[in-house]
Amino acid sequence: MLHFDIEKPDDAIRPFLLDKINDLTKPKGSLGMIEDLAVQIGLIQQSLAPELSHPNHIVFAGDHGIAVEGVSPSPQEVTYQMIENFWAGGAGINFLSRQHGFDLHIVDAGVNFDFKDEDPIINKKIRKMTRNYLHEAAMTRMEMELALRYGAECTQDCFDKGCNIISFGEMGITNTSSSALWMSCLTGIDLKLCVGAGCDNSGNILSHKYNVLKLAQENYKGNGSTVDLMCYFGGYEMVMAVGAMLKAAELKMIILVDGFIMTSCMLAASRLFKDVLYYAIFGHQGDEAGHKLLLEYLGARPILNLGLRLGEGTGALCAFPIVESAVRMINEMNSFKSIRVTKYFH
Amino acid sequence: MLHFDIEKPDDAIRPFLLDKINDLTKPKGSLGMIEDLAVQIGLIQQSLAPELSHPNHIVFAGDHGIAVEGVSPSPQEVTYQMIENFWAGGAGINFLSRQHGFDLHIVDAGVNFDFKDEDPIINKKIRKMTRNYLHEAAMTRMEMELALRYGAECTQDCFDKGCNIISFGEMGITNTSSSALWMSCLTGIDLKLCVGAGCDNSGNILSHKYNVLKLAQENYKGNGSTVDLMCYFGGYEMVMAVGAMLKAAELKMIILVDGFIMTSCMLAASRLFKDVLYYAIFGHQGDEAGHKLLLEYLGARPILNLGLRLGEGTGALCAFPIVESAVRMINEMNSFKSIRVTKYFH
Repeated sequence: MLHFDIEKPDDAIRPFLLDKINDLTKPKGSLGMIEDLAVQIGLIQQSLAPELSHPNHIVFAGDHGIAVEGVSPSPQEVTYQMIENFWAGGAGINFLSRQHGFDLHIVDAGVNFDFKDEDPIINKKIRKMTRNYLHEAAMTRMEMELALRYGAECTQDCFDKGCNIISFGEMGITNTSSSALWMSCLTGIDLKLCVGAGCDNSGNILSHKYNVLKLAQENYKGNGSTVDLMCYFGGYEMVMAVGAMLKAAELKMIILVDGFIMTSCMLAASRLFKDVLYYAIFGHQGDEAGHKLLLEYLGARPILNLGLRLGEGTGALCAFPIVESAVRMINEMNSFKSIRVTKYFH
Repeated sequence: MLHFDIEKPDDAIRPFLLDKINDLTKPKGSLGMIEDLAVQIGLIQQSLAPELSHPNHIVFAGDHGIAVEGVSPSPQEVTYQMIENFWAGGAGINFLSRQHGFDLHIVDAGVNFDFKDEDPIINKKIRKMTRNYLHEAAMTRMEMELALRYGAECTQDCFDKGCNIISFGEMGITNTSSSALWMSCLTGIDLKLCVGAGCDNSGNILSHKYNVLKLAQENYKGNGSTVDLMCYFGGYEMVMAVGAMLKAAELKMIILVDGFIMTSCMLAASRLFKDVLYYAIFGHQGDEAGHKLLLEYLGARPILNLGLRLGEGTGALCAFPIVESAVRMINEMNSFKSIRVTKYFH
């Protein structure tokens, strides 16, 4: 099993961070969550003057064998079609990457399509899609380890170009199903509370989706370990995101977490190496049914709550300016020591 | 009384906006509030391709006669000291203006300090502070009308330089008191629910503050009209913000509304000319006790909820990137018509 050397940030710097923030010219605590983020980022970077450099966003894409069971109203072809849309610059994640200055990378983790060598996609294809976990494990242990390693490589490539804040998204028809199963099996929360409508706004498919996933959960006869559950119900794009998150934490990068699927990946990552959570900033609470519960389970406070349910990492990128504000606050505001303002606020 | 010619945006364009947004390559409705903002902005600008140009932020500053009653733990001198901090670029509103590309203007609406002619402040001083509304009206009718006119002039100046999105903030020790009284008297909500701790994090001053304001409310013997209440309990900086908001709506500009104080100003503005609300985007729900209630009263859905209680307009500016995302979404995303993606999402 791939090892990640993830350190809990040294807490010794915390009182110095708090002193600095509390001496800025504002009522104490009056920038709310922005102040909390500044503390977290200062801890991650072990600095009273943290910086954000070269933000990168990686979309991992993969297809799922469970799709044949009709758990999504969308045909599987949408996965590769949307990748072509990413290349064309016309998807949600594209305008947000442009707006917030993120380098955008698309990774083929296991899409059921033959891309050409010259296509602008990072080829990490494990297999054309996972197996159908209604009947068998979605992937082998060896495939899972390879996916973790590939994800880690993607993060390392960003780090090597000077990136210290990274976010992840996904494209993969039916991957809310895998996420619901990871969530339920890893937390013990009833599957019913973990299954949502996914991209199906109408909700028509929900009961069928739940019945299929419930049966899959009952059919599972594995040992219940995190690794075994990741193999059995995972998507290649999800395992790759787990590897990418763990490598980011090892490299002391800030990880922006997107919606339900990426939060499920962070859950799995935290079961493998719990200290990954110190590096995670949760961008938003999405509209998918299980997301609120999963965030609560992780003790996570999401920055935004805008009713998003698009995926691709869009919610993580929407939250980026608040993270930037935290860094600007601690670096750019005057202190009561430096300017003549009566320290009335305390 | 100054007249503002505020039009309700023509709703005929709405179905065309919805058609365009629903045909973008994403699950229908999956960008949540970002989609709602795109509709609102399209209505304001009567355009399927709206644009944001030259964002401006105005901080109105003023002092209050009620300060002598000890309703704030902060000495009045903090108002002008913070203005000097704005000039130095070291306050909260400064780094946010830089981050989001806002031109920042500071207006002396009635600060108890003698600024020099060469100071970088827009001089709209009505008087050095309002009168103490525990015993008499804070301002005369003539002063109020002048403040409305001055506020309108400030907005007009921004508009003339090409600005179509504007936000407002305030600096004025004790102005949460005036806001609580406006809110209570204009809505009928019990004063107790409108009074919060302001910048006093400890809450020590809250019961004294409430008692003073309750007495002021009992002492009030006016006719209860919006104009009379604005005169009696207002701050010059608040009335100026009302005038600025009304002019912005007349000019069909987008108005970004900040926290409790600016929301109270929007309430008053809407009592004078109700259609101003079509132009208002509420940036955040702040931490001041009455703000949540007031937003609900106005039927407003704030973009952010980050526990902010700084004022200056900081919460409005934090929300700007989400507004920009709405405009980018409608202009930059591909449609299902323009690219080969199965319209699976609907």
